[in-house]
Amino acid sequence: MSASVSQPRVGVWLIGARGSVATTVVAGCAAVTAGLHPPTGMVTETPPFEDCGLPPLSSLVFGGHDVVDCPLPKRAEALAAGGVLPPGLPAAVAAELTAADREIRPGGPVPGPTGHAPGPEGLITAFASDIRDFTRRCGLARTVVVNVASTEPAPTGGELPASSLYAAAALRAGCPYVDFTPSTGLHHPALAAARAASGLPYAGRDGKTGQTLLRSVLGPMFAQRALTVRAWSGTNLLGGGDGAALADPAAAAAKNAGKERVLADTLGTAPEGEVHIDDVPALGDWKTAWDHIAFDGFLGTRMILQTIWQGCDSALAAPLVLDLARLTARAHEAGLSGPLGELGFYFKDPVGEGPSSLGEQYAALLGFAERLRGGARGAADEPAARRPGEHR
Amino acid sequence: MSASVSQPRVGVWLIGARGSVATTVVAGCAAVTAGLHPPTGMVTETPPFEDCGLPPLSSLVFGGHDVVDCPLPKRAEALAAGGVLPPGLPAAVAAELTAADREIRPGGPVPGPTGHAPGPEGLITAFASDIRDFTRRCGLARTVVVNVASTEPAPTGGELPASSLYAAAALRAGCPYVDFTPSTGLHHPALAAARAASGLPYAGRDGKTGQTLLRSVLGPMFAQRALTVRAWSGTNLLGGGDGAALADPAAAAAKNAGKERVLADTLGTAPEGEVHIDDVPALGDWKTAWDHIAFDGFLGTRMILQTIWQGCDSALAAPLVLDLARLTARAHEAGLSGPLGELGFYFKDPVGEGPSSLGEQYAALLGFAERLRGGARGAADEPAARRPGEHR
Amino acid sequence: MSASVSQPRVGVWLIGARGSVATTVVAGCAAVTAGLHPPTGMVTETPPFEDCGLPPLSSLVFGGHDVVDCPLPKRAEALAAGGVLPPGLPAAVAAELTAADREIRPGGPVPGPTGHAPGPEGLITAFASDIRDFTRRCGLARTVVVNVASTEPAPTGGELPASSLYAAAALRAGCPYVDFTPSTGLHHPALAAARAASGLPYAGRDGKTGQTLLRSVLGPMFAQRALTVRAWSGTNLLGGGDGAALADPAAAAAKNAGKERVLADTLGTAPEGEVHIDDVPALGDWKTAWDHIAFDGFLGTRMILQTIWQGCDSALAAPLVLDLARLTARAHEAGLSGPLGELGFYFKDPVGEGPSSLGEQYAALLGFAERLRGGARGAADEPAARRPGEHR
Amino acid sequence: MSASVSQPRVGVWLIGARGSVATTVVAGCAAVTAGLHPPTGMVTETPPFEDCGLPPLSSLVFGGHDVVDCPLPKRAEALAAGGVLPPGLPAAVAAELTAADREIRPGGPVPGPTGHAPGPEGLITAFASDIRDFTRRCGLARTVVVNVASTEPAPTGGELPASSLYAAAALRAGCPYVDFTPSTGLHHPALAAARAASGLPYAGRDGKTGQTLLRSVLGPMFAQRALTVRAWSGTNLLGGGDGAALADPAAAAAKNAGKERVLADTLGTAPEGEVHIDDVPALGDWKTAWDHIAFDGFLGTRMILQTIWQGCDSALAAPLVLDLARLTARAHEAGLSGPLGELGFYFKDPVGEGPSSLGEQYAALLGFAERLRGGARGAADEPAARRPGEHR
Repeated sequence: MSASVSQPRVGVWLIGARGSVATTVVAGCAAVTAGLHPPTGMVTETPPFEDCGLPPLSSLVFGGHDVVDCPLPKRAEALAAGGVLPPGLPAAVAAELTAADREIRPGGPVPGPTGHAPGPEGLITAFASDIRDFTRRCGLARTVVVNVASTEPAPTGGELPASSLYAAAALRAGCPYVDFTPSTGLHHPALAAARAASGLPYAGRDGKTGQTLLRSVLGPMFAQRALTVRAWSGTNLLGGGDGAALADPAAAAAKNAGKERVLADTLGTAPEGEVHIDDVPALGDWKTAWDHIAFDGFLGTRMILQTIWQGCDSALAAPLVLDLARLTARAHEAGLSGPLGELGFYFKDPVGEGPSSLGEQYAALLGFAERLRGGARGAADEPAARRPGEHR
Repeated sequence: MSASVSQPRVGVWLIGARGSVATTVVAGCAAVTAGLHPPTGMVTETPPFEDCGLPPLSSLVFGGHDVVDCPLPKRAEALAAGGVLPPGLPAAVAAELTAADREIRPGGPVPGPTGHAPGPEGLITAFASDIRDFTRRCGLARTVVVNVASTEPAPTGGELPASSLYAAAALRAGCPYVDFTPSTGLHHPALAAARAASGLPYAGRDGKTGQTLLRSVLGPMFAQRALTVRAWSGTNLLGGGDGAALADPAAAAAKNAGKERVLADTLGTAPEGEVHIDDVPALGDWKTAWDHIAFDGFLGTRMILQTIWQGCDSALAAPLVLDLARLTARAHEAGLSGPLGELGFYFKDPVGEGPSSLGEQYAALLGFAERLRGGARGAADEPAARRPGEHR
Repeated sequence: MSASVSQPRVGVWLIGARGSVATTVVAGCAAVTAGLHPPTGMVTETPPFEDCGLPPLSSLVFGGHDVVDCPLPKRAEALAAGGVLPPGLPAAVAAELTAADREIRPGGPVPGPTGHAPGPEGLITAFASDIRDFTRRCGLARTVVVNVASTEPAPTGGELPASSLYAAAALRAGCPYVDFTPSTGLHHPALAAARAASGLPYAGRDGKTGQTLLRSVLGPMFAQRALTVRAWSGTNLLGGGDGAALADPAAAAAKNAGKERVLADTLGTAPEGEVHIDDVPALGDWKTAWDHIAFDGFLGTRMILQTIWQGCDSALAAPLVLDLARLTARAHEAGLSGPLGELGFYFKDPVGEGPSSLGEQYAALLGFAERLRGGARGAADEPAARRPGEHR
Repeated sequence: MSASVSQPRVGVWLIGARGSVATTVVAGCAAVTAGLHPPTGMVTETPPFEDCGLPPLSSLVFGGHDVVDCPLPKRAEALAAGGVLPPGLPAAVAAELTAADREIRPGGPVPGPTGHAPGPEGLITAFASDIRDFTRRCGLARTVVVNVASTEPAPTGGELPASSLYAAAALRAGCPYVDFTPSTGLHHPALAAARAASGLPYAGRDGKTGQTLLRSVLGPMFAQRALTVRAWSGTNLLGGGDGAALADPAAAAAKNAGKERVLADTLGTAPEGEVHIDDVPALGDWKTAWDHIAFDGFLGTRMILQTIWQGCDSALAAPLVLDLARLTARAHEAGLSGPLGELGFYFKDPVGEGPSSLGEQYAALLGFAERLRGGARGAADEPAARRPGEHR
């Protein structure tokens, strides 16, 4: 799947472009392109996704917004020291990290020309301009905007949260949008009209990387076997930026809503039990999720299933981000618009309609690949892909 | 789904009729019929199986073979003392236990008329005669034979193992057969011709009640997410008769083959790792299964999933046995024959063709229900069900 | 250790006398006395405690205060149904349960003669009178008061919480006092003077039954091996009354302080990590505690220990309550006074001075037994036991 | 504790000098000496061991035997790639690794002058000569021999196994000996006379680094609390050389005997349950040990404790090896001889007499430190240390 000379290049604009996930995305894309590592964890590199017209990894160009300054090569070294990236990888892909770093623009409240911070409208304009400049300067066929920033607290006042400013900027720049976090982003009521009018496809929200991934296969198992789940309790321990962000109960609430929705949907009823998210800086980018499921068997016999998931959050998220950027870019090319419900496979709290069990979500994803393949053969002959306006 | 007066009664002939599973089957069927407990764990009592023409629980009549003498009511008391049956249940269903106990005939090497043990042929004849007498005496429309005896070692010599003698007797008595254990049963080469000629439906083998159930949803999860499983190791601790039987490495080998087949089928390749089955009498009928799964994520990052399943084997098995007896009886009524591959949902090592992931097996089971429902509406109008001879 | 005719009888007055722990104490004492069960979990029934002059189990007489009405025999039946007591035990010890039930008096705000609730002083007087009446009526040599009521929130205002009213009543009635909960009890500043003046021995607080018991052996292990604990995180799931009480963050705070003190004391520093206590009614009296310990080995290598403790809280607590009642009664008999620091083996947050590691606490307990044995031989000859006023 | 110019240098001769443990020992000693890492996991670097006269880390000189050729610097790079050593450490201590590598001599059946392999006697002579040359060439005050080679199968014939040849060589070279493995080593009956006559101190066997370490604190906890352990089951998963060696049932048997001895000693009786050791190459030097402990509480209530230990074997072993080399060298200097039972803290299956609970073993170790301190003050004044011949 190497890029030919004539292959159009596709932009991936990352909100939170200097974070662990973004750094792993950029370094990993380069490493896989160079053949240094197999594409483990990338579903779009498996056989069912051949010939779907997805942009090859080698065609992806990265940029983004961030409020911190640490250059990507340095960030990558820190990740390698923490065991998130293989030792030696930062050096091997230094050129690609440096190239991406040049395309990162300051996010957050940028001071206006008079030294005053601009209002929300000014920020949206500035962000959209950054994205358009990136697309033009790099000669990109299109750019997908993906939010991989730290989870922000659920907004309380009427003001647009930062994630929604970025989402509005994506719309204004005419870019498909993927929300990989539970932050408000495109879902703010104030953006509803612009979102509908944009004719752009979008996907989200909150990447399903660990505990919820498990729940989306275990919940259906209990339901299919007619076993009654009495209580489903969970604790997540994680360090890194996400641990600190989610130690804020307001931010955790957003995340937990997605986790619990999976259970309610797959079990048909919400069981007892809480979910805790603890910030444990000693764990760095590693995450441990313990789940304790008390269920009744025949004649009310009490049984227990426990699961312990120990994963590296960035390494779990990055291949999904690459998948989503490719799928969403292709959906845009194929003229699809609105919520891409078929991508529910990737999310805790999927947009649009769709099943909650992973197996059915995978089937839906395969169907989506088929639809893209149809579109790839020639949109003129085969109008199966939804056009703007005809999306449910 | 109560039985009307005219509802034909259906026999369930249990090999190992005085074991924990059989006792739980008989007591549980009575308890659910009487409304003392909900039918937790019985898939055939969920909405998709309404109107499939399954025999109601109240129409089931139990009998069987066993080599031990302990009466069912006494066995049930022992199970209640061990927490397998609810306290009070044995007393509440004493009549049904006693009735079933009256229909149990001695299994194993029955002495012949001259005091000598009969040969295999004599045993098959005697067993088949027991089953036919039961069917006739109780006025049953049909009888399903289900093997729930302890796992036997893989046979080494040419002689038919006990499980195959019972299976041959089922064929001879014209009864559908379900193998809930990994024992040889109907799969002995010496029975192949009789099995094919019988035109009877059969299902098996080895009920999927715990660790393998989990594996059949977790294996597909790793595969769908393109995560590379490096090693999948497991340890099972169990007491009761099954623990002792499986402490025999030869018996365990039969069981483990099924467990490993699930992984190889769902992952596409067999990972490293062993499975241990330990006899721990202190655990009684309770089973603990620990699985440790080492997998690679993006860029080769090493991650771990562990699961701990603590269940009561009899309580997990019994509702599946009731499901299978009903489904197989209905298949027989509908004129189906040969291996019922659509019942792979229930088994570690399913007969016939079929998927290995639980989600797809559940879909196949729903399709089977649909097929039975079609047959129920009138075989004359809708010849979808396979007739004897036309089965693959 | 059977009671001779002349053996003086000893009272055990339980605050929360109709709770799960109290019911298990009364039923279990009767069952062990009758030889129905071995004294598993009772340290005072092991060889080192022979000849210490402890009151035999058969000499114990139970009574207490509670605010609920459910008779002990009925409560015991409920516990047996939930698997906390063996089936059949409530019937076998019905006489003892009924006898204890007759000695239970209403706790809480008892209405005064004019129909108005009495103030704190009135309640203390009434409670002390109940205890004195019990001692006199039953002809007891002495009575030990033990608080096994649900944990109460940490008091906020200046008012005495209920636990302190009972503790004050114990002092006023001249009874040794054991606080098996983290509630304020005897530790309220307003009781300091009376406590010191009373010359009574007392013990507490907060029985160490599960997660903290483990921590008191694992903390020293890490310290002795010079391994650096980075983070120690824990989640407790429990139903029953304690689960509900501890779901109140204020009550949980009291409990967690004890848990964390053990780590800080044994590790020399408090590691990162939180402790959660979740109310999971589906678990009934069963408690699951998960601990996740991230530690550094040589050269900073990151390692993990996880523990999962699944126990029945009442069954863990009851033998310790019997131990404590016996030891404290004997201490009183021997003329000891003040905080019994040598009983730190039993508590999360021990009174007095003493080590935090279980091994050292056990050694201290053996030393205490030795001291009691000395006292038993004749206080006149061997003045080793501390007399009132000479206690540190 | 830096080495002064006049500080005598002490040799550490490692059997298996190119293995993971040995490489970590050499690299780690250099790293701690250089102040690159704190001495985590080294008990001899904690306050109670100050002023005991232990040789400082900077005075240790490494050499050894091995049958493989891979140079230590290269081995260290491989360990760093596997996450066992910190990235960057091999380069930082390259000089020390190279120096140690120069002192490694070929082990195993060395061909004699005529090209024929020498017999056992010839090998012992050659090995002893290697050790003496090392001591002389490097100007060492003494040399301690430590076996850190892979576990060998329990010997079957009468022939001396390799580990015993090395142990005999240590005796012949006049060197104290530490057996960090369960291999036969010094315990072969054929060496008993030479061992007794040597007047040398020795320690062993089988370093207690993970599952058994835990068992040595949990076993005493159950015993002290009078809880009845019904079954204690364990599974170990490990890759690396040790995993492969222990996949041999004969080698595993030696290891498991030590594990089970701890339980029998601390519980007073051997519970049900097996121990499995699985070779899982995917885990590399990482080890996972799962323990499942079924115990009875009051009135026979069934409870469960499970532990999961995830550690890096080399990082756990290396600081203990350094501790043991220092303590044994100092014991030799102080004139002690025979089995050093006070070092039972470090071993699964300690030589000499001593307690089995870790807490008591730690107390014994502190007593040993005190004894060495006494000896350090001047052997002439304070004859507390045992001299050759007076050892029990």
